[in-house]
Amino acid sequence: MNAYQPRTDDMAFILSNVLQAPARLQALPAFAEVDPDLMRQVLDEAGKFVGEVVAPLNRDGDEVGARWEAGAVTMPPGFRDAYQAFWHAGWPALACPVEDGGQGLPAVLEATLYEMLSAANHGWTMAPGLLHGAYECIKHHGSDALKARYLEKIATGEWLATMCLTEPHAGSDLGLCRSKAVPQSDGSYHLSGTKIFISGGEHDLSDNIVHLVLARLPDAPPGPKGLSLFLVPKFYANGHRSAVVCERIEEKMGLHGSPTCVMRFDEATGWIVGEPGRGLNAMFVMMNAARLHVALQGIGLLDAAWQKADAYSKERRQMRAPSRGKGAGEADLIQDHPAMRRILDTQRAWIDGGRVLAYRTALELDLLKHHPDATRRDAAQRWCSLVTPVMKAAFSQQAFHGASECLQVFGGHGYVREWGIEQIVRDSRVAMIYEGTNEIQAIDLLVRKALADGGAGLLALLHELRADLDPSHAPDALALHQFATLGELTLELAEANARDTSLAFWVADDYLRAMAVALLAWAWSRIEAALAPQTPELATRWQAPAQALRHWVLPEFDMRVAIIKARCMDSRAGIRS
Amino acid sequence: MNAYQPRTDDMAFILSNVLQAPARLQALPAFAEVDPDLMRQVLDEAGKFVGEVVAPLNRDGDEVGARWEAGAVTMPPGFRDAYQAFWHAGWPALACPVEDGGQGLPAVLEATLYEMLSAANHGWTMAPGLLHGAYECIKHHGSDALKARYLEKIATGEWLATMCLTEPHAGSDLGLCRSKAVPQSDGSYHLSGTKIFISGGEHDLSDNIVHLVLARLPDAPPGPKGLSLFLVPKFYANGHRSAVVCERIEEKMGLHGSPTCVMRFDEATGWIVGEPGRGLNAMFVMMNAARLHVALQGIGLLDAAWQKADAYSKERRQMRAPSRGKGAGEADLIQDHPAMRRILDTQRAWIDGGRVLAYRTALELDLLKHHPDATRRDAAQRWCSLVTPVMKAAFSQQAFHGASECLQVFGGHGYVREWGIEQIVRDSRVAMIYEGTNEIQAIDLLVRKALADGGAGLLALLHELRADLDPSHAPDALALHQFATLGELTLELAEANARDTSLAFWVADDYLRAMAVALLAWAWSRIEAALAPQTPELATRWQAPAQALRHWVLPEFDMRVAIIKARCMDSRAGIRS
Repeated sequence: MNAYQPRTDDMAFILSNVLQAPARLQALPAFAEVDPDLMRQVLDEAGKFVGEVVAPLNRDGDEVGARWEAGAVTMPPGFRDAYQAFWHAGWPALACPVEDGGQGLPAVLEATLYEMLSAANHGWTMAPGLLHGAYECIKHHGSDALKARYLEKIATGEWLATMCLTEPHAGSDLGLCRSKAVPQSDGSYHLSGTKIFISGGEHDLSDNIVHLVLARLPDAPPGPKGLSLFLVPKFYANGHRSAVVCERIEEKMGLHGSPTCVMRFDEATGWIVGEPGRGLNAMFVMMNAARLHVALQGIGLLDAAWQKADAYSKERRQMRAPSRGKGAGEADLIQDHPAMRRILDTQRAWIDGGRVLAYRTALELDLLKHHPDATRRDAAQRWCSLVTPVMKAAFSQQAFHGASECLQVFGGHGYVREWGIEQIVRDSRVAMIYEGTNEIQAIDLLVRKALADGGAGLLALLHELRADLDPSHAPDALALHQFATLGELTLELAEANARDTSLAFWVADDYLRAMAVALLAWAWSRIEAALAPQTPELATRWQAPAQALRHWVLPEFDMRVAIIKARCMDSRAGIRS
Repeated sequence: MNAYQPRTDDMAFILSNVLQAPARLQALPAFAEVDPDLMRQVLDEAGKFVGEVVAPLNRDGDEVGARWEAGAVTMPPGFRDAYQAFWHAGWPALACPVEDGGQGLPAVLEATLYEMLSAANHGWTMAPGLLHGAYECIKHHGSDALKARYLEKIATGEWLATMCLTEPHAGSDLGLCRSKAVPQSDGSYHLSGTKIFISGGEHDLSDNIVHLVLARLPDAPPGPKGLSLFLVPKFYANGHRSAVVCERIEEKMGLHGSPTCVMRFDEATGWIVGEPGRGLNAMFVMMNAARLHVALQGIGLLDAAWQKADAYSKERRQMRAPSRGKGAGEADLIQDHPAMRRILDTQRAWIDGGRVLAYRTALELDLLKHHPDATRRDAAQRWCSLVTPVMKAAFSQQAFHGASECLQVFGGHGYVREWGIEQIVRDSRVAMIYEGTNEIQAIDLLVRKALADGGAGLLALLHELRADLDPSHAPDALALHQFATLGELTLELAEANARDTSLAFWVADDYLRAMAVALLAWAWSRIEAALAPQTPELATRWQAPAQALRHWVLPEFDMRVAIIKARCMDSRAGIRS
């Protein structure tokens, strides 16, 4: 089994040459000192830490797993030490402001860090993965007293955090939550109820755990507007333990290195975060960042899977490849067989294109927060709002399906534990579900966003994406063609939606897929534009995936459009799905 | 967790009303007594046995699994008793001739039995799944002495069998096998070597195990033509144990109920089966039946996954469905949400269409063996040869991907063990690899078969498929259109292949998918034709999957054709992939 190695050269090329990230960031007052050297240095240090400390623990994370006993959770071998090293080195605080104990670096660097971490060890990474969201939540909605006690601990990662949302009868539909919060005379609340699927609800990685809990005040209205957000720590300032119990952890398909806890709150003392009845708002602050994080997990896991399959395909020989003629004797390397070559290059097309899109989205999060010009911030908001659900769904799906394709490169050896590829298939599957299922991402994109303003925002985004493209370059022309089609399709759906509001729910998945493919076409047009002035040696690295994209990935676009248009036509004829 | 229940009504409808199986079989002298009542009776008895005896053991098969200790393998709780009941009841011998201890029933009934068994308990079913192949192999190639000792034991299933093909360096490429067979003065051979991935190489289900082993005679030429086939039992007639040791079993992604063994042969005494150097031929006798068997596993597993998701979607409520309006209060059932409805109905389109195709293929196997007319037998041979690889690849893929879609219906509850859906995802994945990887099926279909005679056989098959279709019926017209396109495409590829023999290897997967979709369109046209004279109540059962097929499945055909045509165009322009 070969462990994942971060590909910092590829990441740096995309950040600097494709996205001009250093120049864009340096133009912002907050990041005046973020030059290419600093970015490269952070990438390399992150790569070193991830490759040396976190990646080697991945197999034990799966095979030993997190263990529950009498309410306590013991993490797999090495997990606590690695986490203690992680926070002491300042990694959780990378993108937090200096005044809160952070390093004040841009979100796009945090994005590359989490891509590497997820690739190396998805289970371990679940624990710090929630920190930044909890930080933002307390920062923007917490009282001064809560901030004084918790903000820096969370920013630095000294204490880990959870999001306690789901309940046995309330998964995608948080409005069905029943947990209760009863106000006390001292301004605190007593929280009671059972929360399920709580990642890192209990563990031994950090000395305290801070739970953010959705619950209802007495007499709160039913549904989502009756939900408020509360903070309940595992240990209070006086050292006493709160009345929060981890009742068990789930047996899962994968991700055994991350304990998925059932948490019972028995009149546990906590404090409100933000306004009563605005609990979902407080959580949704971090929605785009959290969903982008899942996309980065997908890209990382796919890279980890590709690395394994690529290495295996260069070692193992089976049969003669057609390009090698029909001579007797030795077999050819697996990588020379077209069916395998195609799998490998296609995954790389998704990985490279995914990085362009994910890092660009992270940059937009930086611009959204720090750009002095409101118009530019609006554009950043639009980008994040429309592109993030596409990224979350498309790359969590590709991680699972692409890892399964990579498993196929190993033949029977992929189905056994030996090479670690089947672990990636199992681990990655959860990402299609959490942070809003992929079907909910599609509805978010089409129904709640693209159609909510009759397509105006989507067309503005496409207009912006078109700006840099040159129709006389073949890769640009492909992207331009798909953008034009996507724009027309959006208007056609807006028109159909006025007649039949169900239709969009039926075709939302196809719409998201069409947009994902068009965005990939755009991302690769930007890679190919960045390569033009480069050396031919560099270009050969990107040639095969660029070709795989055109041959095997982009054709899905027309299929999705055809599916949607057929449904629109039925709708016009009065036929409901 | 709800256990799988065989859907014998659906199976009977397809056998009798769609495929007219009883009439076709009764026309054959061998099956003159196989009337609709007998077929239904066998289906019902099989369904009862599978549902009551085999299905309840599936969870333990996964969680306890087969256990290795000091060379012995203990099967999961209940597995041995269920197997003993299975062979005592005569199920393994269903399709074996009466003179060999069997029941002399048609292969199509065995097909329905194995679909049910695989759906109920894929791991358990691996053990008897190899019996029929071993029976055919010994029947057609074994010496009279071997037949006298082994044929009836294998036919009845009193003894189980293995196929020992793969070696550490020889997976898809059996020509690389190194195991040796040294002739002895008494006509026996001493077998030495290590075989891997041997399903059921060791277990406690039956009192003896019969291994069929590929090995090389001294001075045999390298490559596949140097391979001969040998029989080595676990126990000889004198009660002595052979020098065959199970060194360990694999840790796998799933299928824990089936021990995947590393088998070491240390000068183990065995006997040759068939001619020296014709070992692969002896094994390939059973290739079509074995690959159809994998397709049936896929259909069964997909049905099991669909049953779980369907039941869950009728119990669990989340959010308001668009068709139900925007009233406050209670949430709607998951089955009313378009994204979930679409997943459920699409899987059913694959299951029902798959049954039509798989049972029809099994019928062709019956005709191939028993039809008095050589021309009809040739047509059956053509059907099996061309349709079987499509079925193996398409339905093993759909089992995995469709089970994953069904998992999505459960949200987070699908990723945990609770409902058993994630087990199906893990178990089913192996079927894309064994009996020839799906990529090898595609090469078999396009390179070795469709293009080998310039497309003639494929066009003859399409001609035959078109015979019953009426272009004025919409479902028939869709299938006719796809058949016409597939025929043209085949000729275009034959022409391109004359210039560039690599091209077919690049597009083989797309060609197989296009054919799978076209065959599904045909299968559903036959279902819809059979429904026409039926009661409307019956028709509603099939309406939603028929619609899902048209909306979400058939559009893939045009995409695959576009992908292939683009590669052909490049090839004409002298651009190689």
